[in-house]
Amino acid sequence: MKKNVLIIGAGGVGQVAAHKCAQHNALLGDIHIASRNIKKCLAIIDSIHEKGSLQNPRGVLKAHQLDAMDTAAAQRLIEQTGSQIVINLGHAFVNMSVLEACIATGAAYIDTAIHEDADKICEAPPWYANHEWKRKGRCAEQGVTAILGCGFDPGVVNAYAALAVQEYFDKVDSIDIIDINAGSHGRYFATNFNPEINFREFTGQVWSWQDGQWKSNRMFEVQRTDELPVVGTQTAYLTGHDELHSLSQHLDVPNIRFWMGFGEHYINVFNVLRNIGLLSEKPVRLDNGQEVVPLQLVKAVLPDPASLAPGYVGKTCIGNLVKGSQNGQPREIFIYNVADHVEAFAEVGSQGISYTAGVPAAAAALLIAQGTWDVRRMVNVEELPCQPFINLMNRMGLPTHIREAGREDMLLGWDEPETEAAQA
Amino acid sequence: MKKNVLIIGAGGVGQVAAHKCAQHNALLGDIHIASRNIKKCLAIIDSIHEKGSLQNPRGVLKAHQLDAMDTAAAQRLIEQTGSQIVINLGHAFVNMSVLEACIATGAAYIDTAIHEDADKICEAPPWYANHEWKRKGRCAEQGVTAILGCGFDPGVVNAYAALAVQEYFDKVDSIDIIDINAGSHGRYFATNFNPEINFREFTGQVWSWQDGQWKSNRMFEVQRTDELPVVGTQTAYLTGHDELHSLSQHLDVPNIRFWMGFGEHYINVFNVLRNIGLLSEKPVRLDNGQEVVPLQLVKAVLPDPASLAPGYVGKTCIGNLVKGSQNGQPREIFIYNVADHVEAFAEVGSQGISYTAGVPAAAAALLIAQGTWDVRRMVNVEELPCQPFINLMNRMGLPTHIREAGREDMLLGWDEPETEAAQA
Repeated sequence: MKKNVLIIGAGGVGQVAAHKCAQHNALLGDIHIASRNIKKCLAIIDSIHEKGSLQNPRGVLKAHQLDAMDTAAAQRLIEQTGSQIVINLGHAFVNMSVLEACIATGAAYIDTAIHEDADKICEAPPWYANHEWKRKGRCAEQGVTAILGCGFDPGVVNAYAALAVQEYFDKVDSIDIIDINAGSHGRYFATNFNPEINFREFTGQVWSWQDGQWKSNRMFEVQRTDELPVVGTQTAYLTGHDELHSLSQHLDVPNIRFWMGFGEHYINVFNVLRNIGLLSEKPVRLDNGQEVVPLQLVKAVLPDPASLAPGYVGKTCIGNLVKGSQNGQPREIFIYNVADHVEAFAEVGSQGISYTAGVPAAAAALLIAQGTWDVRRMVNVEELPCQPFINLMNRMGLPTHIREAGREDMLLGWDEPETEAAQA
Repeated sequence: MKKNVLIIGAGGVGQVAAHKCAQHNALLGDIHIASRNIKKCLAIIDSIHEKGSLQNPRGVLKAHQLDAMDTAAAQRLIEQTGSQIVINLGHAFVNMSVLEACIATGAAYIDTAIHEDADKICEAPPWYANHEWKRKGRCAEQGVTAILGCGFDPGVVNAYAALAVQEYFDKVDSIDIIDINAGSHGRYFATNFNPEINFREFTGQVWSWQDGQWKSNRMFEVQRTDELPVVGTQTAYLTGHDELHSLSQHLDVPNIRFWMGFGEHYINVFNVLRNIGLLSEKPVRLDNGQEVVPLQLVKAVLPDPASLAPGYVGKTCIGNLVKGSQNGQPREIFIYNVADHVEAFAEVGSQGISYTAGVPAAAAALLIAQGTWDVRRMVNVEELPCQPFINLMNRMGLPTHIREAGREDMLLGWDEPETEAAQA
């Protein structure tokens, strides 16, 4: 049993997680929000009060200024606020400094994306071995719960993968994780999260796990088209993504791939910017002597992802297409969630992409608070009990469905003992 | 009779003009080349020696450092070098400061593009009235010859327009100037001259002269497709351009339009960059506090236009499609030049776009030197005798042809008295 939550990062995902934690503060206790820019934390707190999101209106809800690259400062803030759970939703560059602060204080750690070094793009697989897993031993020694990659993808899709292997198949041949945003923000071009991180996903090699080994492709080299629930016919492209780097190591499945949906317009803009050299993280020298990193300028001219939320319409569909066999018969299922941009904005003031990433992180905090996931070691989501997680998200706004040929799509859920989290 | 030439600007066009002046230095006298960056002048001088371009090998050929925004410095250099003819091929922002230096010294002035203020895009038409023509009175008072816009377009196409009105029609209904570069530089994307100036041509309103008045369109809004000599079927887009702003005032022609050829790829890249905001001349602030002008970064990542010359293949076709009537019969002619990128590089080390702009400027210097064009006032090219100009360019590498339905295309030329220029 742990309580008092420190959320680090005040972007769109931080806003969702803060709202969701506030909605469950009877169990979670004090809620603290920290960012380099305290104004962004204060805006989130205003939004929580405006929406009446606090379950216990007398609960503590506070903003803090923090440079999360500074481990000592993060440690002090954890101690001062008495936080036993840290949800790290800052820039991917701060993950390891925040994790170190958790190891030092014993606080549980949750993040939603893999650690990145600013000057490296697409390191050797499995990515988690480059930074996170090097600290597995120390987490176990100190009894620190560290849950890696607990947004939607990675995160919920890791639980879907574990569920499929454990409950639906004798043998799984392939897991294809398909991520479609069929929403529209109405702008000429925008990324749904920090453009710097967004483009970095696509500028390096595309790693996938095929026939039990790593395979490298170029971005937009391989595509598939599927008929998906709600969002219809969608084309998605083989993309490198965090979850492949843990699922490949933890599940005995020979083929695990990630596919992200892109429209032709997105791909065209991306290709123009990349081919001209405007997505480079290496500085170039202008005629006036300035040294400028092109990617940072592109970020500056693109819309702030948070600004897209008010006008965002349409839905996302993210799920795992799993193929294998059971009782000697071939089987194929699609486990998925559909989220709605307009509903997300109405509830928490963020667009659907932020919503799907922030709700699972808050759900993880609840599962740690009530003990189910307080495992006192470093884990990826597929190593944890997946049913309470999926059950909890059904009640938190991200219901899970399953599709199988010849059946109606159905909501997935299980009976569970009465717990505080179940009541939450 | 004037002699000794100062060329200001050491880009691709400066290189062509320097070679062409060197080829005629028996008439022109000393040749001086000045630029902010003296190394570029020295490289041109090396290239002139390498190609053996000096007609009189003992003639003076010298490089100078000059900030052409500094009128006093330009005046000093004109006086020190005894230059009576200045060919201004610098950045369009320096035109008025160089012209002022010519007015102060009495030197003849030639340029190839309209003056621009760095912070204005597409001023009110007619553009020449905003800067150049305000100095008409002072040029006349001082007896200064100033020939505006004497590259190919504006320049040669102005002569073609005057020729059509004077020699081929009783009444001209329309002049459509069509500029096609059917060459290929083999790069993903590049501009043929300074990207900053190049893109500024297309980011403002597109002014054209239609039914005797100014009409405004957006770039790429109106297109035409023609079957042209040598380069074949080509699509071109209504584009704002310098020459419309003098031809509309000097010729009694109700419709004068400029069309520039663009491939789909160019238009796509241009639209992406413009729509994202990367062609803006207004600084944006990066996360790190840097203030950066997007267009200057785009210039920095694109290939240097001069670097395209060695691999450039294919041809340009630029000409005037003129429609009207003669002797009561409708008539339509196309007066044009075809230039070859490979031949231009072999002769002067530059690509064809620079060649077509630099040769006419050198031809103007020759016509001033031998007196034909030394008119001691400010003029646009259509106000000058066009036959000696066209004749001279036939011998200087830019032959003029005429096409009319039902006839073979033929070279245009006239008998002329023996002059030094004709011998040159």
